[in-house]
Amino acid sequence: MSGWLAALDRRAALRAKAGLTRRLRPRAGTDSVVDLAGNDYLGLARHPTVTAAAGAALTGYGLGATGSRLVRGSTDLHAILESTLADWLGTGAALVYSSGYLANLGAIRALVRPRTLLVCDAHNHASLIDGARLSGAQTVVTAHADPAAVDAALAAAPGRPAVVVTESVFSVDGDLAPLPDLYTVTSRHGALLLVDDAHALGVTGPAGAGAVAAAGLAGRPDVVVTATLSKALGGAGGVVAGPEPLIRHLVDTGRTFVYDTALPPAVAAGVLAAARLARAGDDLRAELADRATTAVRRLRAAGLAVSDPAGGVLSITAPGPEAAVAWAAACLDRDVAVGCFRPPSTPDTRSRLRLTVNTGVPRADFDRALDIVVECA
Amino acid sequence: MSGWLAALDRRAALRAKAGLTRRLRPRAGTDSVVDLAGNDYLGLARHPTVTAAAGAALTGYGLGATGSRLVRGSTDLHAILESTLADWLGTGAALVYSSGYLANLGAIRALVRPRTLLVCDAHNHASLIDGARLSGAQTVVTAHADPAAVDAALAAAPGRPAVVVTESVFSVDGDLAPLPDLYTVTSRHGALLLVDDAHALGVTGPAGAGAVAAAGLAGRPDVVVTATLSKALGGAGGVVAGPEPLIRHLVDTGRTFVYDTALPPAVAAGVLAAARLARAGDDLRAELADRATTAVRRLRAAGLAVSDPAGGVLSITAPGPEAAVAWAAACLDRDVAVGCFRPPSTPDTRSRLRLTVNTGVPRADFDRALDIVVECA
Ligand SMILES: Cc1ncc(COP(=O)(O)O)c(C=O)c1O
Ligand SMILES: Cc1ncc(COP(=O)(O)O)c(C=O)c1O
Repeated sequence: MSGWLAALDRRAALRAKAGLTRRLRPRAGTDSVVDLAGNDYLGLARHPTVTAAAGAALTGYGLGATGSRLVRGSTDLHAILESTLADWLGTGAALVYSSGYLANLGAIRALVRPRTLLVCDAHNHASLIDGARLSGAQTVVTAHADPAAVDAALAAAPGRPAVVVTESVFSVDGDLAPLPDLYTVTSRHGALLLVDDAHALGVTGPAGAGAVAAAGLAGRPDVVVTATLSKALGGAGGVVAGPEPLIRHLVDTGRTFVYDTALPPAVAAGVLAAARLARAGDDLRAELADRATTAVRRLRAAGLAVSDPAGGVLSITAPGPEAAVAWAAACLDRDVAVGCFRPPSTPDTRSRLRLTVNTGVPRADFDRALDIVVECA
Repeated sequence: MSGWLAALDRRAALRAKAGLTRRLRPRAGTDSVVDLAGNDYLGLARHPTVTAAAGAALTGYGLGATGSRLVRGSTDLHAILESTLADWLGTGAALVYSSGYLANLGAIRALVRPRTLLVCDAHNHASLIDGARLSGAQTVVTAHADPAAVDAALAAAPGRPAVVVTESVFSVDGDLAPLPDLYTVTSRHGALLLVDDAHALGVTGPAGAGAVAAAGLAGRPDVVVTATLSKALGGAGGVVAGPEPLIRHLVDTGRTFVYDTALPPAVAAGVLAAARLARAGDDLRAELADRATTAVRRLRAAGLAVSDPAGGVLSITAPGPEAAVAWAAACLDRDVAVGCFRPPSTPDTRSRLRLTVNTGVPRADFDRALDIVVECA
């Protein structure tokens, strides 16, 4: 029986007709492409201090962690990384996961009790959506960045435990959630606020501590932060940061923590080096902010509809899905990599180009790449 | 409001009373501990060829992949690793994930259609259980390693699409699923067979191709294999291997693939080197099998109840949860690390020590460690 393969082929044909086929385009270690698509906002993935730290750990610890964190996978590097992250983010404790995806799955499940209501922003990342699903909790999706809608959702469920789940800098348009207003609402209702700070950590906030810190919410007992170590920190992995009892709970009961092989020690070492550089990287953040402002000005001057970037991500509205694909392809033909988001992987019906600011790209290349994006429009 | 923290503290106190508190014990890069707990079965995590390959990729590619596989995260190293794994496992194609956990979540969801019935072995790993939950499919749990029970479950759902989900070498007791019998049942019912070969890849089968290959099922159109790259391959990451239309489907629609940062290129390079070593590693597998036989003989001679290891994992029944913890602690005091599994993280009510064979451990240390396990019983 391979009727299922025929069914998969039929669905692939439907996707092809709708222009929704995706193709992996492997790159070499170095290429001539100017990167306006990756999330290495501070250029730390290739920073010599970062790769040297990772290289030294490769020699000292080997490649893999050889087990889950509770068996043989915890090294002193993981422990130092966790205390560094907790200190930086201003939380009681922090726990490192092998990915931001698994961190989000774990964090949401840990916050859900019987009868908990989850209130999720309409633009939330797939890992947050999957976390809500996996938790089994009743979930209400509210309009994007709309504290009044969150307020109404909480008011409609009086007396129930509730968790409001949002990104800070949103991954698609790079806009910022109204964190202070959301916190006003959640604290009034006695709800928790879970913020995925993936695109803000290292990029915004005091010493790059992220958007939660920037909003003055670091260390609040009713706020939990998740993030990935794969964007501004140039590595891989994820983190849940929050009050110490939550972290203890995750160590004892979190399935995506307990039953997963630990982050490779060399990656932990590299990310630790990157965190230290990011924390001291006000110059990098100033350059990033300047580039973001320049990009918005340049693109809007050309008549394009551009989002308001709070960090290193911005989006440009495309006329439609095919036009978005053609636009991105034209850019790539001219050696500029940009992201291309089309339904169904956009939170609404709009297709977009997604551009990132990566300070590792030489400034002249960055400026020229903006011209190319405009010329290919 | 921090009533939720008080509630977490109350639950922590209950766990403490039940002896279920877990503690992270960070290790240094090198220590005097003999490792009978990790999953680096062939000792490849520290193999100089593996760490050299990873180190070279660190220099050439930087630390992180800087994006998801469909944006900037796919490198030629990922592509070569995927074709190598597909060739080794004898499947049409293979797709690399950032963890085995996310690979399992993705594989199960991709196989579920409306009305699909999942039939899951009672000893399945947490990632398979979560995959079933996240898929939303109706799930039946059958007795451990019981093809007749699977047959009955499928017979009770005639005409429905069905997927039977099992590990091959089970992670807890190291015993082997009856794969040929399971396949006879699934193919008679027109069901799919999904096998998590995590603990068999590199360890069993022709050229270490795993238990699915050993059962003669490699490349069948109605069999899908998942595995992690973090055990015998000494690194991190996961893989889904199967017919090409499935892999295409995952690339286009698999959320845990599309929305996750790619495996770091250096890890992909190290795992690729490890896969080549493992494939050529019949000598390592012979040593592993010999040690497993020795361990069973030695432990049974001491009157202990030992599982039948199909690969590098075996378990010893402990009198109870506290005894298991004390036993493992006594071993660690004498510099031997063993795993300790207690309810609720065992598939039944039995507490166990879990021992692994790691050919990277010098043979004399391994033999001495067995004596210590017996002496601490
Ligand atoms: C907002 C957000 N959260 C979580 C993730 C997942 O993190 P990771 O890639 O480390 O799994 C991503 C991106 O990948 C993201 O953009
Ligand atoms: C049987 C099995 N499947 C999947 C996994 C998850 O793989 P990973 O650790 O790469 O996430 C593990 C162990 O960690 C496992 O033992």
